[in-house]
Amino acid sequence: MPEYKAPLRDMRFVMDEVFDFAAGYQALGLQDVEPDLVNAILEEGAKFAGEVLAPLNRIGDEEGCHIENGVVTTPKGFKEAYQQYVENGWGSITGPTEYGGQGLPASLGLVISEMVASANYAWSMYPGLSHGCAAAIRAHGTQAQKDLYLSKLTPGDWTGTMCLTEPHCGTDLGLIKTRAVPEADGTYRITGTKIFISCGEHDMAENIVHLVLAKLPDAPAGTKGISLFIVPKFLPDANGEVGERNSLACGSIEHKMGIKGSATCVMNFEGATGFLIGEINKGLNCMFTMMNHARLGTGMQGLCHGEASYQSAVAYARDRLQMRALSGPAFPDKPADPIIVHPDVRRMLLTMKAFNEGNRALSYYTAQLLDKAHYSSDEAERADAENQLAFLTPICKAFMTETGLEVTSHGVQVFGGHGFIREWGQEQQMRDCRIALLYEGTNGIQALDLLGRKVLGSQGKMLMAFTRQVHQFCKANEAHPTLGGYVKKLAQLNGQWGELTTKIGMKAMQNRDEVGAASVDYLMFSGYVTLAFFWLKMALVAQQQLDAGTSEADFYQTKLATQEFYFKRLLPRAQAHVEALEAGADCLMQLTAEQF
Amino acid sequence: MPEYKAPLRDMRFVMDEVFDFAAGYQALGLQDVEPDLVNAILEEGAKFAGEVLAPLNRIGDEEGCHIENGVVTTPKGFKEAYQQYVENGWGSITGPTEYGGQGLPASLGLVISEMVASANYAWSMYPGLSHGCAAAIRAHGTQAQKDLYLSKLTPGDWTGTMCLTEPHCGTDLGLIKTRAVPEADGTYRITGTKIFISCGEHDMAENIVHLVLAKLPDAPAGTKGISLFIVPKFLPDANGEVGERNSLACGSIEHKMGIKGSATCVMNFEGATGFLIGEINKGLNCMFTMMNHARLGTGMQGLCHGEASYQSAVAYARDRLQMRALSGPAFPDKPADPIIVHPDVRRMLLTMKAFNEGNRALSYYTAQLLDKAHYSSDEAERADAENQLAFLTPICKAFMTETGLEVTSHGVQVFGGHGFIREWGQEQQMRDCRIALLYEGTNGIQALDLLGRKVLGSQGKMLMAFTRQVHQFCKANEAHPTLGGYVKKLAQLNGQWGELTTKIGMKAMQNRDEVGAASVDYLMFSGYVTLAFFWLKMALVAQQQLDAGTSEADFYQTKLATQEFYFKRLLPRAQAHVEALEAGADCLMQLTAEQF
Repeated sequence: MPEYKAPLRDMRFVMDEVFDFAAGYQALGLQDVEPDLVNAILEEGAKFAGEVLAPLNRIGDEEGCHIENGVVTTPKGFKEAYQQYVENGWGSITGPTEYGGQGLPASLGLVISEMVASANYAWSMYPGLSHGCAAAIRAHGTQAQKDLYLSKLTPGDWTGTMCLTEPHCGTDLGLIKTRAVPEADGTYRITGTKIFISCGEHDMAENIVHLVLAKLPDAPAGTKGISLFIVPKFLPDANGEVGERNSLACGSIEHKMGIKGSATCVMNFEGATGFLIGEINKGLNCMFTMMNHARLGTGMQGLCHGEASYQSAVAYARDRLQMRALSGPAFPDKPADPIIVHPDVRRMLLTMKAFNEGNRALSYYTAQLLDKAHYSSDEAERADAENQLAFLTPICKAFMTETGLEVTSHGVQVFGGHGFIREWGQEQQMRDCRIALLYEGTNGIQALDLLGRKVLGSQGKMLMAFTRQVHQFCKANEAHPTLGGYVKKLAQLNGQWGELTTKIGMKAMQNRDEVGAASVDYLMFSGYVTLAFFWLKMALVAQQQLDAGTSEADFYQTKLATQEFYFKRLLPRAQAHVEALEAGADCLMQLTAEQF
Repeated sequence: MPEYKAPLRDMRFVMDEVFDFAAGYQALGLQDVEPDLVNAILEEGAKFAGEVLAPLNRIGDEEGCHIENGVVTTPKGFKEAYQQYVENGWGSITGPTEYGGQGLPASLGLVISEMVASANYAWSMYPGLSHGCAAAIRAHGTQAQKDLYLSKLTPGDWTGTMCLTEPHCGTDLGLIKTRAVPEADGTYRITGTKIFISCGEHDMAENIVHLVLAKLPDAPAGTKGISLFIVPKFLPDANGEVGERNSLACGSIEHKMGIKGSATCVMNFEGATGFLIGEINKGLNCMFTMMNHARLGTGMQGLCHGEASYQSAVAYARDRLQMRALSGPAFPDKPADPIIVHPDVRRMLLTMKAFNEGNRALSYYTAQLLDKAHYSSDEAERADAENQLAFLTPICKAFMTETGLEVTSHGVQVFGGHGFIREWGQEQQMRDCRIALLYEGTNGIQALDLLGRKVLGSQGKMLMAFTRQVHQFCKANEAHPTLGGYVKKLAQLNGQWGELTTKIGMKAMQNRDEVGAASVDYLMFSGYVTLAFFWLKMALVAQQQLDAGTSEADFYQTKLATQEFYFKRLLPRAQAHVEALEAGADCLMQLTAEQF
């Protein structure tokens, strides 16, 4: 079974040639992020991911996590890998320098996290959740809270979680029952049960910092009455080191379809000491500032499993001998031809490749927006980046995970019956990927966020900011000698995007159900058009390199062939989504609940 | 977690109202298959499936099978359920009366097997494989072989397997290495390793009859040199009872993504005694006579998991309270609305429903063809049934499993995060279903079979026999007051089906790769059109009942609403498949294997 190797050439193509990360860093005043540094980080990151984390991926799935008396044991090797990760400074690359971080930009962090998570997604969740927790404290904590917790979370000595979901509510957090009772000393007693807490308990770090949503006794009903609390597993002592055990415990861990190396915990808080973070009753806002980043990370999961699945599939397809090419034997001296000669195997591999590489371009573009939103000295540029992020995040989360699941299913299919057997590793990618369509807001919720909150909620402005960019790109390239036809196709779809939105908006004024009836198909349409845009950007670069007589003709021809495949064989699906959503709400709403 | 209940009303709708099974039995001279008998069988079958088998489905997944010293233990309760199944005569309902079977028609057997397999697919494979083995012996065995083996296999005292695949070949059986050396007594010594042998070893029956493909020492190369052998685990003694142990053993069992209650065995034959069945070097033909039936059974797997998944999903969607309806609270007295009020949840449920019920109609229609092919006294009717079966089988196998997998994935999604948790059972349906796209010939192979062998191989005749039927249906109903618009849509797609085929056929004359490049999208297009045809047939019946003032208005309105949903929201995908396949082979074949 081949193990994951970071596709550095493909990554560098997007970073250097399509989006010119280096120029971006210069423009944002990040002169310290020099090419040599970036090189070194990518090379070392690839090594760590491929050599340390990838070999633990199957072990993590086979062993899973175990709980005994509230103590959770992670799979063999996970703890040691985490120590190495912390010691080598991987956890802190984007962390604040004042707390021991390296202060590198989010775009670089995302590329590294792609490697880490592709090698071993379940493992990557432990540091991944910590980053989210640290970011929340950084954004909303008091100076004292920041000093205390970020100095531990940034290097990775402690890990963190986010405790939102309860047995009776996931999407609908207004229903939470966990209570926070104020004490005279300014702390709170937290009591309640949280479920689906990723990395809620484990043996990898000396302390775990839980961020817990809870309600004060006199809080208003619904989401306006939710506050956020820091609830550490061990209460820090006077020196800020691990002190007394807090009144909280992991009650059980879930048995899941996948990501088995990641402990999914039921956390019981029994009068645990908590510290308010941010304002009372503004807890959901605090959480939501983290959401975009977490959702982008979940979108990456689709790419990560997709890439790992593709690498195995293409190796298998070159190696496995079975049947002859339809056009006659390709290797008459062998007992059969490698299955990569068969058109349908190629269709599956190209589908995988086209989604993976398109999704990579989309996510790296989005990561550059994170840099701009954070570092730009130009307020308008920052605001534009924030708006684009708000618009693209639900697309990244849902489209990248839907297509990621499709990719991993093709990866199973390329292996034939062996794809179903655990030792080959392909079925694990599909099982692990399946969760990404569910958590961090189901894809249905993402679709409502995109169409309802972002697009219609901004009276179309967020959409237009993006389609304008696509329009300008199309205008500039419509006469391209070889790609012009594809540019016209993109321009047509881009125009349709706007018209479609107007139509839905009109209908939604009569009936709000029209938004929910259109939303998922609208999101998928948006994803297909967005990827078409990024595929054309990549194709233009590839064509330029070929025109200039590159020495890497094979590499760039493959980009052009994959872009052609995307336009001819995948993009037609966009129209099916249009037709489906134009059917409107009536055909969904006419049945009573009992008639189903 | 709700357990499977056979959807008798839906089943009866298709059996009685859409295809009139009873009239079919009359016409075929099966007067014994009386409505009362059918009723009793369906009611009792539903009870057995729901009460005995369904409760073992999760246990089977959790426990799996175990092997120690070549002895395979099935999950707790499997053996006892099998005994009950045999004692109650469920295994023998379609078996030949001369060997203790009840001689009932295949169509009724298929309905019962839908119940059994929906309740517990992994368990259903043990009797399922036996049926295939018995059918092969019935079709190709000598009288002595039939007398000996069918008297044991028919009631289910012994079970059977089919041993085709080897480590280096699955699709490409011409490569098999298992050897059969003739002995002076007319038997053969069978030596070789077979993999992926479903139910190859277990503790449920006293003997296991393996049908093994092997090559004689002087056999011609490739598929023309393969013979078929009966290789029992225990050699029958002089009385036909279990005697000496044969030289074969299960070496290991596979660890799989799903269907864990079914033992998937590596079988080692070490000079085992085998008995030739059928002619020397004609073994593959013997196997292929079983293929249509086995492939239809695998297609059913898509429906079975889809139905079980739907039943859970709809119960959960009615029960789970989360968020308010977009159009305002539906149940203001509850803390939130049940999620079935949300349009996107309905979109998922209706997608599940539309595929399940469409697939059920397709498969029951096909089952009726099995009856005709077997019982009709009219040679032309038999030949037509055989031709339609040949044409529809790859569509059933591949389209029903592709859509079945989609259905189970929606079933997971409806549950939100809980869908990923094993105890809810939804993720098991998806894992169990995934194999159906792979075994009994991957869906890619089905697509080549449909387009290459069946459609183009018959110069379009097999397609035209079916499209003519659709055409006549459209002609007869184009003026229907409420369904006429849908009839026109079907007529248009039906015409396009023929044109598309001609185009591909022309291209394929220049380049055989065009067949492989178009095949899967062609099959999916064919499936969408076929289901549109059956959905309209169902809608016509429902409309008639409503027009006649039925007392079951809810039931029939739901059929109409689901047909409308299918046409408006799923059928548009057919066009995306057309566009994709019209892209042709070049965009798949231009890259070298190394460029991937």
